[in-house]
Amino acid sequence: MPELRKDPVVGRWVIISTERGKRPSDWAFEARSRKGGFCPFCPGNEDKTPPEILVVRDGASQADASDWQVRVVPNKFPALQIEGELNRRGEGLYDLMNGIGAHEVIIETPDHEKELADLDVLHIESILRAFRDRMVDLRNDLRFQYILVFKNHGGTAGASLEHSHSQLIATPILPKRVAEELEGANKHYQLKERCIYCDIIHQEMDSKKRIILETDKYLAIAPFASRFPYETWILPKEHASHYERMEDAHYNRFAEVLKDVLQRIQRTLDAPPYNFIIHSSPIQRSDVPEYHWHMEIIPKLSRIAGFEWGSGFYINPVPPEDAAAHLAHG
Amino acid sequence: MPELRKDPVVGRWVIISTERGKRPSDWAFEARSRKGGFCPFCPGNEDKTPPEILVVRDGASQADASDWQVRVVPNKFPALQIEGELNRRGEGLYDLMNGIGAHEVIIETPDHEKELADLDVLHIESILRAFRDRMVDLRNDLRFQYILVFKNHGGTAGASLEHSHSQLIATPILPKRVAEELEGANKHYQLKERCIYCDIIHQEMDSKKRIILETDKYLAIAPFASRFPYETWILPKEHASHYERMEDAHYNRFAEVLKDVLQRIQRTLDAPPYNFIIHSSPIQRSDVPEYHWHMEIIPKLSRIAGFEWGSGFYINPVPPEDAAAHLAHG
Repeated sequence: MPELRKDPVVGRWVIISTERGKRPSDWAFEARSRKGGFCPFCPGNEDKTPPEILVVRDGASQADASDWQVRVVPNKFPALQIEGELNRRGEGLYDLMNGIGAHEVIIETPDHEKELADLDVLHIESILRAFRDRMVDLRNDLRFQYILVFKNHGGTAGASLEHSHSQLIATPILPKRVAEELEGANKHYQLKERCIYCDIIHQEMDSKKRIILETDKYLAIAPFASRFPYETWILPKEHASHYERMEDAHYNRFAEVLKDVLQRIQRTLDAPPYNFIIHSSPIQRSDVPEYHWHMEIIPKLSRIAGFEWGSGFYINPVPPEDAAAHLAHG
Repeated sequence: MPELRKDPVVGRWVIISTERGKRPSDWAFEARSRKGGFCPFCPGNEDKTPPEILVVRDGASQADASDWQVRVVPNKFPALQIEGELNRRGEGLYDLMNGIGAHEVIIETPDHEKELADLDVLHIESILRAFRDRMVDLRNDLRFQYILVFKNHGGTAGASLEHSHSQLIATPILPKRVAEELEGANKHYQLKERCIYCDIIHQEMDSKKRIILETDKYLAIAPFASRFPYETWILPKEHASHYERMEDAHYNRFAEVLKDVLQRIQRTLDAPPYNFIIHSSPIQRSDVPEYHWHMEIIPKLSRIAGFEWGSGFYINPVPPEDAAAHLAHG
């Protein structure tokens, strides 16, 4: 059983694998599929993953049949375990609990050669709805406080399989970064009675200096204090606290802007590896006037060196104003 | 002039280069010296770096002569600029200031082929004293709140030159990670009137589960909530808030334990790239009963994937108890 352990100084929870007895040479825990090698995510290999949780397909068919468009399965090597009690406990100074959670894989397309940005808008929409549907289902499990949806595209961004997929992790705790954003947003709300992300959107639309793309419903910007070159945020223009609680029509509009932004990143930066993460409100709260869901996209262009690790202090060699201009025209 | 920009939600300061007009293809800002290529850090090439700030050599000699053992020079491509006013200002919601600071390089040895762990203890001691001397000098500049000393060893850890060196950055702000540690330590002190790191040291010495190495003055442990496989902290056993305010004899004892730990990491993990960072108290405060300086060493074994970036939430596949046992016997 994995453990969730809390750093006693800064309060950060960490997932610690407790599988014992590995030798140092065995620490590399990710198997990498080679080009042309066997792919468990390809159609016909449905029996090589755990049984499907959710599937998008035309018409009716048997579970785990091969005629799917989008397929959600439990991660075969989950970081957290779905069954069990949290069993929160202390060990002297330290706090820990069992590593309970859900860890799922969203296989985005049956086509091994296609990337997310290559799929058509309706197909991307069905992936974005699959995220939503899994979040809505998992929030019924009251052990979970938060659901993170993220994607690692390309080897240096951490993807262990090249077949296009994203992932979802439901956790019994609030991840530190999210807790910090909620706390910062809450301070602003106490002071101003406004959502800070709504304020950011208004200022960016006024100044126009860091806009990558604007549609009727969405805004893509290079944030003012970007940590990474070409860091990109996509935000709904109107206040919306939870990704999974949006009006139905919004997922299509989000698919449109996401495809456009990913294609701009592909073209402008020579198809780099990237990560994206959806930042949304805690799933058990229904109304959060101070927090605004958004997606953060981080192209993996620079190595993160010691200074950044040690300090939480980033050096970004590309001004976000330039990044926005290059992507806007890219 | 670089800028320091503050994230309006979480309060993180970021260094933003404002050098304009770079094309996306130019963003790669680090030149890499090849094996056998020209090295500006080798003896004889002193005129290829800015003039020396501090030097360790046997006997007297001219400035920038070639008979040095340890040499400190300004970084030729500094992230922050030493001259100017901070000029703190706002831009609507956003806060920023000029990117004022010091960025120096500590060239650890004249021998291009040697790594820090290969040097003898007295040589390492003179490097550790050079860190101290630069911190003591730079704290006279009241614009600076904090000094970070760190090392990137090996390409994937971010080193841009292979000749063994470490770096120092003095900043007018408290880096976020440090501010969080100070805040957490302060909360504990308010509650317990004890330093939390002293409490950690006592508990680790009692339990013995995560000790890598213990000497009369220092303790090396795999921390309870390690973010990374084989993450290692070295702490002075007796309370000491500031690295640069230690008794003179301590630098030798620290050199001894640092060499031993780095050699264990080399042997056990097949000489991986690594980063180290000294976490110390803010330089302008003289007495900090709640904070305890320490060094964090992070071997670069696993790629950090999207989940970690987005959440500040880490998945560590190696239990620290195992890491400590392997390094203790390594």
